[in-house]
Amino acid sequence: MTKAAFYCGDKTFRLESVSLNQPKDEEVQIQVAYCGICGTDVHVYSGHMDQRVGTHRIIGHEMSGVIRAVGKDVNDLNIGDHVVVRPLSHCGQCSSCQRGLTHICENLVFHGLDTDGAFQEYWNVPAHTVHSLPKDLSLSYSALVEPLAVACHDVSRARVVSGEEVLVIGGGPIGMLIAMVAKEAGASVSIVEVDQERIAFAAELGFSSFDARAPELKETLLNQTKGQGFHAIFDTSGVQAGVDLFTEVAATRARICMVAIHTNKPNIDLFAFFWKELELVGARVYEPEDFEQAIKLLKSKKIDASSMITGIYPLEEIQEAFTPAKKLSMKTLVSVSPDLMEG
Amino acid sequence: MTKAAFYCGDKTFRLESVSLNQPKDEEVQIQVAYCGICGTDVHVYSGHMDQRVGTHRIIGHEMSGVIRAVGKDVNDLNIGDHVVVRPLSHCGQCSSCQRGLTHICENLVFHGLDTDGAFQEYWNVPAHTVHSLPKDLSLSYSALVEPLAVACHDVSRARVVSGEEVLVIGGGPIGMLIAMVAKEAGASVSIVEVDQERIAFAAELGFSSFDARAPELKETLLNQTKGQGFHAIFDTSGVQAGVDLFTEVAATRARICMVAIHTNKPNIDLFAFFWKELELVGARVYEPEDFEQAIKLLKSKKIDASSMITGIYPLEEIQEAFTPAKKLSMKTLVSVSPDLMEG
Ligand SMILES: [Zn+2]
Ligand SMILES: [Zn+2]
Ligand SMILES: [Zn+2]
Ligand SMILES: [Zn+2]
Repeated sequence: MTKAAFYCGDKTFRLESVSLNQPKDEEVQIQVAYCGICGTDVHVYSGHMDQRVGTHRIIGHEMSGVIRAVGKDVNDLNIGDHVVVRPLSHCGQCSSCQRGLTHICENLVFHGLDTDGAFQEYWNVPAHTVHSLPKDLSLSYSALVEPLAVACHDVSRARVVSGEEVLVIGGGPIGMLIAMVAKEAGASVSIVEVDQERIAFAAELGFSSFDARAPELKETLLNQTKGQGFHAIFDTSGVQAGVDLFTEVAATRARICMVAIHTNKPNIDLFAFFWKELELVGARVYEPEDFEQAIKLLKSKKIDASSMITGIYPLEEIQEAFTPAKKLSMKTLVSVSPDLMEG
Repeated sequence: MTKAAFYCGDKTFRLESVSLNQPKDEEVQIQVAYCGICGTDVHVYSGHMDQRVGTHRIIGHEMSGVIRAVGKDVNDLNIGDHVVVRPLSHCGQCSSCQRGLTHICENLVFHGLDTDGAFQEYWNVPAHTVHSLPKDLSLSYSALVEPLAVACHDVSRARVVSGEEVLVIGGGPIGMLIAMVAKEAGASVSIVEVDQERIAFAAELGFSSFDARAPELKETLLNQTKGQGFHAIFDTSGVQAGVDLFTEVAATRARICMVAIHTNKPNIDLFAFFWKELELVGARVYEPEDFEQAIKLLKSKKIDASSMITGIYPLEEIQEAFTPAKKLSMKTLVSVSPDLMEG
C-alpha cells in the first residue's frame, strides 16, 4: 500500500492508502518526488471544478520522479530514469490531431484532472507522456519543468526575438516564468502587477516592474520603450484592465499572447488591431518541444528555479501547502515521497 | 485648365476648373481614366471626416490612368505608361518605417484624403507610389487594383492556403474581393451577409452564401466545414454579431483577420482564443507586393472584375455616383477623363 492525497470537495484533501498497481503494457510507474501546485489545482481545491474532477480525485501534474517499473511495450525508458510527465493524452482522430495539433486535441485528456494525478507516491502514466531528465538536475527544480514549459510555449507562440521590448501583464508564477524565458531569448522585459510583494520580487529578479495602479501607467510604459511600444505582450491577468492596456502600449505589428483564462467576455479595442496590424495569439498548455526547452533551460541554470520555489511541504501537509502563510507565494512544492526528498 | 471634383462638405461635390501643374522632380503627372468609390470616400461624402480632409478637398484613390509627364528625377516611368497609384507616403523615420513596415508608418500620408486625390483629370503623385499596368489590362478593370490589393493583403495576413475552409463575414465589395482572392488561393469560401441582394450575388459568383439572420447559423456554418470550423475568417462587418460569430465557428488555430473598422469596443470571447489557440490578425491597407499580386490576378482574369463593377458615371455626375439608384452596388466607378473612357 502507498499513500495518496485525494481532493474530496470543499477545500479538503484526505490522505488514503492505495494499493500499488503495476503499469499497463504501454505505461510506466513513477515514484513521485515533488509535485508543484498549479493555479488550476487551486481552482479544483476551491471547489470550482467539481463537475469536471469529482470529489474523490488525486490531482497534481507539475511533478518530477523516478521510474520504478516499465510496461512490456515500453522500449525507450528504464527503471531508475529521472523523469517528468507532460500530462496530456490526445485522441488521434479529431481535426486538431489530424493537423498535428495534438496538444489542443478536441478530446484532450489532462492527467491529474481528468485522471488521477501526482499527489501520490506512485503514479502510472502512458509512456508517451514522459520526458527524461538529466541526472544532474535536481528533482525539486524539475518540478518546475511543467509550468516552465507553459512559459516556453507562450514565448514561442509570441515569436519573441532578441532585442525586442516585452511586457508581461501579471506577475504571478506563469508571468514570472514567461519573463525569465523572454529575457533568456534576448528581450528587454517589463512586468506590470498589482501586488506590492510581487512588484518587489520582479524588481529583485532584474525586471523593470511597474505598479498596475500607478497614474499615467500607459505613458510610463511607452517611455520605457522610447515611445515605440512593446513588440510582444503577454496577458496573464485575465482582467479588463489588462485587455485595455495591451492595445494601448502595443507597437505596430505587436504580438499579444493570450495566456489568461478570461471567464467573461471583455471589451477589446479592435480598431487598434486594424490600425496597428496587431496580432492576438492564444496559447494553451505545451507541445513536446516546449518540455525539452524547459528541461534545457533548467539544466543550464538559465532560469532562477530556487527563487521561484517559495515553499516545500510534505504530502501530509498538502492542505497547508494550498494555503501558504508566506506573503509572497510563487511555486509551492509538495514533497510526495519522503525517500526522494532532497537535502 | 482641367476639371476637378471638390468635396465641399455635407454630401456635396462641386466641379471646378484647376490649373494644370507640372510634376515636381520626383513626381509624375497622371491623366486619370477611372476612379472607384471607396467606403472611406463615402464616409468623407457623408461628412464624417471633415476634420481630417476639410471641406475643399479632391478625394478619390481607387484609380487608373496614363502618365502624361514625368519629373526630372524619375527614371523608371515613361509618358504613355498605364498606371495605378498605391496612395501611401511614409515618413522613413518612425519605428514602423525602421522595421520596414512603411504601410503602417506612424505618420502615414494617404493620398486622396490627406492630399488631393484622383477625382480630377490630371493628378500629380510621387513616383514611388506608382505601379505600372500591362497594356492589355483595361483601365476600367484596373480601377479595381487598389481595393483588390486590400483583399490580397488581408488574405496574405491570414496566411490562407489551398484546401482550407474560409469564412468571410460581410459581403460588401471588400468581402467579395477577399472571397475571390481566397478562392483563387485554393480555399473553399463561405460568405455570411445580411443583405438579400448581396447574398444572391455571392451565390451567383459561386460562393456558399448564408443569411446572417438565419436561425441556427452557427450550426449551419459548422456543418459546412464538416464540424471542424473555419481555418481562416475575415471580419469585414464591424459589428458585435460578427465578433460573436468568429470565435464560435473558428477551427483550432484559426486565423481571424480583422479588416473592419470597429468604432466601439465590442465584447470578445478571449477564452476561445486561449482554448483553441486562435489568432486575431489586424490588416490595414497594403504593401507593394499586394499591388503586384492584384495586377497579376486581374491580368490573368482570375478575378471577375466585370461582375464587381456595378456602375460607371462621368465626373459631372459624381454626386449621383455616390448615391447609386441600383439595388446592388459593389464597385461604382467614375470615368474621370472622357477621352480615356472605354468602349
Ligand atoms: Zn500546471
Ligand atoms: Zn484529437
Ligand atoms: Zn480604398
Ligand atoms: Zn514612418
